[in-house]
Amino acid sequence: MELQFLGTSSGTPSKTRNVAGLALRLDGGSWVLVDCGEGTQHRILHTTLSLHALQAICITHLHGDHCYGLPGLLASAGMGNRVEPLLLVGPAGLRAYVQGVMATTALRLPYELRFVDVTQLAGSAPLPALEIAAAPLSHRVPSWAYRFTERGVERRLDGARLAAAGVPPGPHWGQLQQGGTVTLADGRVLHGADYLLPARRARVVVVAGDNDRPELLRDAVRDAHVLVHEATYTQAVLDKVGSGPQHSCARMVAQFAAAAGVPQLVLTHFSPRYLDVARPGLPAIADIEAEARGHYGGTLFMAADLARYQLDRQGTLAPVVQA
Amino acid sequence: MELQFLGTSSGTPSKTRNVAGLALRLDGGSWVLVDCGEGTQHRILHTTLSLHALQAICITHLHGDHCYGLPGLLASAGMGNRVEPLLLVGPAGLRAYVQGVMATTALRLPYELRFVDVTQLAGSAPLPALEIAAAPLSHRVPSWAYRFTERGVERRLDGARLAAAGVPPGPHWGQLQQGGTVTLADGRVLHGADYLLPARRARVVVVAGDNDRPELLRDAVRDAHVLVHEATYTQAVLDKVGSGPQHSCARMVAQFAAAAGVPQLVLTHFSPRYLDVARPGLPAIADIEAEARGHYGGTLFMAADLARYQLDRQGTLAPVVQA
Repeated sequence: MELQFLGTSSGTPSKTRNVAGLALRLDGGSWVLVDCGEGTQHRILHTTLSLHALQAICITHLHGDHCYGLPGLLASAGMGNRVEPLLLVGPAGLRAYVQGVMATTALRLPYELRFVDVTQLAGSAPLPALEIAAAPLSHRVPSWAYRFTERGVERRLDGARLAAAGVPPGPHWGQLQQGGTVTLADGRVLHGADYLLPARRARVVVVAGDNDRPELLRDAVRDAHVLVHEATYTQAVLDKVGSGPQHSCARMVAQFAAAAGVPQLVLTHFSPRYLDVARPGLPAIADIEAEARGHYGGTLFMAADLARYQLDRQGTLAPVVQA
Repeated sequence: MELQFLGTSSGTPSKTRNVAGLALRLDGGSWVLVDCGEGTQHRILHTTLSLHALQAICITHLHGDHCYGLPGLLASAGMGNRVEPLLLVGPAGLRAYVQGVMATTALRLPYELRFVDVTQLAGSAPLPALEIAAAPLSHRVPSWAYRFTERGVERRLDGARLAAAGVPPGPHWGQLQQGGTVTLADGRVLHGADYLLPARRARVVVVAGDNDRPELLRDAVRDAHVLVHEATYTQAVLDKVGSGPQHSCARMVAQFAAAAGVPQLVLTHFSPRYLDVARPGLPAIADIEAEARGHYGGTLFMAADLARYQLDRQGTLAPVVQA
């Protein structure tokens, strides 16, 4: 499982950072896109991601810097002869936005769009490899966090339970491990499914949209391995800008993540005023990072465009070194 | 006057070419944008163009690769605190497209959008520095060419006419040159405006949208200094693709430009199948160029992203060498 950032700027693109887009890469090349700011398809050209292998697009909220790349990406997938249906998950209004653009610009797609309202996710199982749930956030328009939980975690035999049942290690264990059914010498019939446990915890990633109340994520981040959250500015800039835009500063997110016990935090969606490389007297991404580290002792990354992070089966997040 | 290409690919972007966008730069920093494919605002970040100095956006047709960058560019101009009204010229449907996106994505702008239907341009004078006229083309959706004519060409005194009127060179000439009124010794009153001629021909640039019948431009290119036209592919590829997409090949445009006496031709909107640098056995931009040169003896350029061409007061087009 990997995260690859396609855009890490808020509001407008800069020369080095595009507006919001994040790929959640699954095993086997398939992937899910969270948000699709203008130019997301351009960033994808510089990755190994394929529009044919895209399973779903989850939109956190309908502000332009999170969704203006959607029509072009859908069109390019069509010109690339995609035929598989594509899931579009998002707030009410997503369908009207996409279908409105399609109707006014004569866009016809050779594949089906399946719209799923974010409020209707509970209990649905739209993807084979991922559970998707959503939690509401606080922003100028309805905004959501997506909680992605890995499905189909490999299973191991529950040896303790078998021992307790008086089944010693032997050929029967192998058959049960394969999910088979065995009949013991005493006539008892055992089914593998009853003696299999997940070999490990399913990996959980929470990706939040724009939000000025991180504490709303308390339930959503329970047992999560990673939280990706906006930190549009530092506290000092937030104080200057005021609360109108309804964004978080680094301190707010870091304090929340620490209190909630989130082990790994990735900050993104930085105001374009912050320079990538610090210069005297000018705001820099390092300022946001320093503020966050002052309140959070877990593993912390500041996202950059095209940066990749692998979340291994043990749940550890680490940057992928790219050529 | 300058042309700067912001995108030169058709349909989808490539790693080196964005979808359609062309800046017509006027004296004093103001400029007009023709088409606005997704990522146009990203390209602008790599130029000296300012969204504050943008006078008008002319959309040739409502296909995504010519207009999906519009909402994001408008939003960024707003976030940059633009207050001047902005002219949006385009086919019927442009207003519905833009206003539909604005309504579904909560986009509010701090400046006014003034929509002008392309069919209503005749006789209107929307810009102080440019006349804008339009000519219909042939494509899958209504598509237009824009003819831009410089306004306010500097004027010179019509010495021959003054001599014929019996006014010898002298102080009166200077006053008339300034546009003043003079009274001659014999009592005649002369007005400068009656004796002033344009010092040179106004510069004329024609920028065409997607089009499979270049001959439709016969009137529009009369006395034009430059024609910018799509050449999506070569004849061989057009034959393979078929006429369905309704694009021109290089041969068609070149033959038309030669027959119409267009002195300077810039081709653009190349299918992404064409490589920038030729490699054995693969189609390259050089193939399109070679085909065009076989039918056209004028000044010919193959547009590239961010390439700039100066059109000087004598009407000569030449590349601007950039650092």
